[in-house]
Amino acid sequence: MDKKIIIAGPRGKMGTEAIQMVHSEQTFELVACIDRINGGKQLQDIEGLPDLSVPIYENPEACFQEIDADIFIDLTVPGSGFEHTKLALLYGICPVVGTSGFTEEQISALEDLSMTHGTGCIIAPNFAVGAVLMMQFAKTAAKYLPDVEIIEKHHDQKLDAPSGTAIKTAAMMQETRTSKQQGHPDEKETLVGARGAETDGIHIHSVRLPGLVAHQEVLLGGPGQGLTIKHDSYNRASFMEGIKLCIEKVSQLDRLVYGLENILD
Amino acid sequence: MDKKIIIAGPRGKMGTEAIQMVHSEQTFELVACIDRINGGKQLQDIEGLPDLSVPIYENPEACFQEIDADIFIDLTVPGSGFEHTKLALLYGICPVVGTSGFTEEQISALEDLSMTHGTGCIIAPNFAVGAVLMMQFAKTAAKYLPDVEIIEKHHDQKLDAPSGTAIKTAAMMQETRTSKQQGHPDEKETLVGARGAETDGIHIHSVRLPGLVAHQEVLLGGPGQGLTIKHDSYNRASFMEGIKLCIEKVSQLDRLVYGLENILD
Amino acid sequence: MDKKIIIAGPRGKMGTEAIQMVHSEQTFELVACIDRINGGKQLQDIEGLPDLSVPIYENPEACFQEIDADIFIDLTVPGSGFEHTKLALLYGICPVVGTSGFTEEQISALEDLSMTHGTGCIIAPNFAVGAVLMMQFAKTAAKYLPDVEIIEKHHDQKLDAPSGTAIKTAAMMQETRTSKQQGHPDEKETLVGARGAETDGIHIHSVRLPGLVAHQEVLLGGPGQGLTIKHDSYNRASFMEGIKLCIEKVSQLDRLVYGLENILD
Amino acid sequence: MDKKIIIAGPRGKMGTEAIQMVHSEQTFELVACIDRINGGKQLQDIEGLPDLSVPIYENPEACFQEIDADIFIDLTVPGSGFEHTKLALLYGICPVVGTSGFTEEQISALEDLSMTHGTGCIIAPNFAVGAVLMMQFAKTAAKYLPDVEIIEKHHDQKLDAPSGTAIKTAAMMQETRTSKQQGHPDEKETLVGARGAETDGIHIHSVRLPGLVAHQEVLLGGPGQGLTIKHDSYNRASFMEGIKLCIEKVSQLDRLVYGLENILD
Repeated sequence: MDKKIIIAGPRGKMGTEAIQMVHSEQTFELVACIDRINGGKQLQDIEGLPDLSVPIYENPEACFQEIDADIFIDLTVPGSGFEHTKLALLYGICPVVGTSGFTEEQISALEDLSMTHGTGCIIAPNFAVGAVLMMQFAKTAAKYLPDVEIIEKHHDQKLDAPSGTAIKTAAMMQETRTSKQQGHPDEKETLVGARGAETDGIHIHSVRLPGLVAHQEVLLGGPGQGLTIKHDSYNRASFMEGIKLCIEKVSQLDRLVYGLENILD
Repeated sequence: MDKKIIIAGPRGKMGTEAIQMVHSEQTFELVACIDRINGGKQLQDIEGLPDLSVPIYENPEACFQEIDADIFIDLTVPGSGFEHTKLALLYGICPVVGTSGFTEEQISALEDLSMTHGTGCIIAPNFAVGAVLMMQFAKTAAKYLPDVEIIEKHHDQKLDAPSGTAIKTAAMMQETRTSKQQGHPDEKETLVGARGAETDGIHIHSVRLPGLVAHQEVLLGGPGQGLTIKHDSYNRASFMEGIKLCIEKVSQLDRLVYGLENILD
Repeated sequence: MDKKIIIAGPRGKMGTEAIQMVHSEQTFELVACIDRINGGKQLQDIEGLPDLSVPIYENPEACFQEIDADIFIDLTVPGSGFEHTKLALLYGICPVVGTSGFTEEQISALEDLSMTHGTGCIIAPNFAVGAVLMMQFAKTAAKYLPDVEIIEKHHDQKLDAPSGTAIKTAAMMQETRTSKQQGHPDEKETLVGARGAETDGIHIHSVRLPGLVAHQEVLLGGPGQGLTIKHDSYNRASFMEGIKLCIEKVSQLDRLVYGLENILD
Repeated sequence: MDKKIIIAGPRGKMGTEAIQMVHSEQTFELVACIDRINGGKQLQDIEGLPDLSVPIYENPEACFQEIDADIFIDLTVPGSGFEHTKLALLYGICPVVGTSGFTEEQISALEDLSMTHGTGCIIAPNFAVGAVLMMQFAKTAAKYLPDVEIIEKHHDQKLDAPSGTAIKTAAMMQETRTSKQQGHPDEKETLVGARGAETDGIHIHSVRLPGLVAHQEVLLGGPGQGLTIKHDSYNRASFMEGIKLCIEKVSQLDRLVYGLENILD
């Protein structure tokens, strides 16, 4: 049986690609969209969106009430995302939410709601399976090879360094890694910054060059050996694969799962 | 309390380094060696071995009987290795054995003996923690990213291609990976061999160059992303770390564990 | 003074991007297009092309006669490309041609024409500066480090293996490299194809995975060291940079130059 | 005809390996060593050196006077190295000197002496051909791809960061690269040091991990592409290859050449 899907945030980059993806999958059916403007129109009425006669709602509750759906994908911002997700759970529609912006209170509230209704819910700050596996592997490996450095590489239009993924990876490794200072105790930077940023002894290096997309290497070293775990992200197609995986899994859940890594068995 | 250790195979490359390693660790004590020649001598009598007054036995049973030891490290060949390991288990000394050459029957016999006596035993075909982690991670990742190729790189004096590690990695990934043909169905080699060796759709490429030591990359690809797991082995120091880990773990076991991956928790 | 530019092949992928690039550069001016259909229309009349009132000609000679231009960019196929280039040279317009398909006779004829008229001309089989540098560097390095292997990686929709660039790189290295058999003389493939394709002792390995774009590594090894030259091509933007460079250089030439490497001084 | 060779600094790491190398090459003959102690002894009298009856001199002038030699290899320190090299040139013996420590005045004086006597001389701060090629290629490429970052990786016992090679590579690229600030003008380090050290807009990152030896990557990026030039140094064997090359070349010279790159034609 086809999975009937509602998407919120159809005009964003992720939303537009998610619409294409759902439309192109044989066992998925796009039944409605939620947009804070364009209520009452059809997708085909909106410039840049596919030529589909799928209804658009401005009011999420009306949408969940009137439309028979299995799954709700939220690709909006944390504020409205939280409201949408609560409502979807109330109506027994399984939410798949791609945001890292929820507070602990919000997650906790959604967990309760999901549990009470026995309706599965997935919140995934990162939909790229490869990136999630990289972080998991780094966490495991750091237990045995506690000397570790991270090199992340992005296009030169990125504003912040290090990347959020690098910071998250370091944090995950700190859970398993015996805290230690790395490098020679007397090492000296003859040019300031050469040894990169440091968090709990882990060094992080941020490379920015035109042409690059989004890449990260975790380098672990021990006497006589090195282990490197590298993820290259070339485009948003990787996120679409992650959303597909979540769509397949969320209906089998009866509670909220936070993080793609926790549905990878 | 110090761990009292017996080493078999002291004159081999691994044995010589293991003696150095045990000698240099404060909580380890080398109490005897087993060698098929040199019985009755001391280590210091043998050219190329450290200047230690540690007794050498030709008869393993005599050694296990007379010497008070906790752990037995076998770095000989599978034939004598099996006999040594059996005897060590009979005398309640925990074996750590570095060989990939035991038959299933031999492993099964040692498992029974280990269980009966409640004496821990580790058989590790590969002592390099990084290499073992690489294979484990490849196995996990292949479940989600079934398009995979392996590139292994070795010095140009290596005779066989692909390496044993590459073949083992491919076999481990087949346990989790949905079998599939990779590449374009109509792809064509204009130079024979360009697409490498193939096993169950996985392509393996063997690079041989002077200067290289022992390196392997597992490349997994999916739409819009790539995940690479790479191990570099520079020298035998990596094996010594693995042996150390086994020495720490084996006394806590009451059964046989096969493969370093199964003591990595 | 602005460079006035005519582009042939406006509807192809390269052509469409070249139009965008020329349009976006302040010192370039797109003055006409040559297309085998659509003669008499304007660019803005063609679906998918930018909204510009630039005339389209079906007859190249009429175009070169009527339009005052400095540079002619050909992004069509070798057949019409040769005719276009000849005509442009006759009319004193400097051609920049992106094709690897000309015969030696054609190139020779264009060389003569270019020389006679003192009109610069660039024929560039590859517009990516980085790829051209990689091949040049590989050629230089192979003189000193004659043990070399090539790994090229492409998306899994590519039909031929190895890539044209890999074959060309190997050919270029053969000009400087002392011919030798690589690897151990007694090396043995336990899985056929593991050691890749071979040409003059150089081994070439072709990796095909979803997610990849177009990548090549040239690995050179010697006792105790390795040198790797790697090019990653992410999208056609790299070709546009090469075309820009050719536009700048071609007016300063008074003869034909074949290959981007020969305008890199 | 064999090349007769004198080596100064036989007890150092480089010296010891150079003795082995010269001894193992069929067309080289080791005729004497210069050592500030051990004068009057033979190599075989010194612990740790090969069992050869080669005379050792404390007085370099006496050595050059009494011994018939073609080539002099200096592997000592800059101070005595300068004196040795001057004397060798006076006696018409071609020096090959591995030091980066000479002052400009010293180099200039040796250039004059070399020219006057028509005796070839090579001073090479780095004997690894691969490293020298990497720097040359980086210098050439930076002209066309001025966005560049350097990642150098060494074992964790190294005291200074960045490495001398990284600093030299950056300096060489500044000769050809149009000076520019890299990255986004508004980029911000949320962890200090993430963007590495900076010199003239080039960012340098120093990784230190156990297991690593000496590695450097130069990453150049442009729209849609990346070019990476990487050198891996695994052991001193690479230096021996460079010394061999210098021995072959120096007799063909009639002047001083500074830097291995300048004998690579």
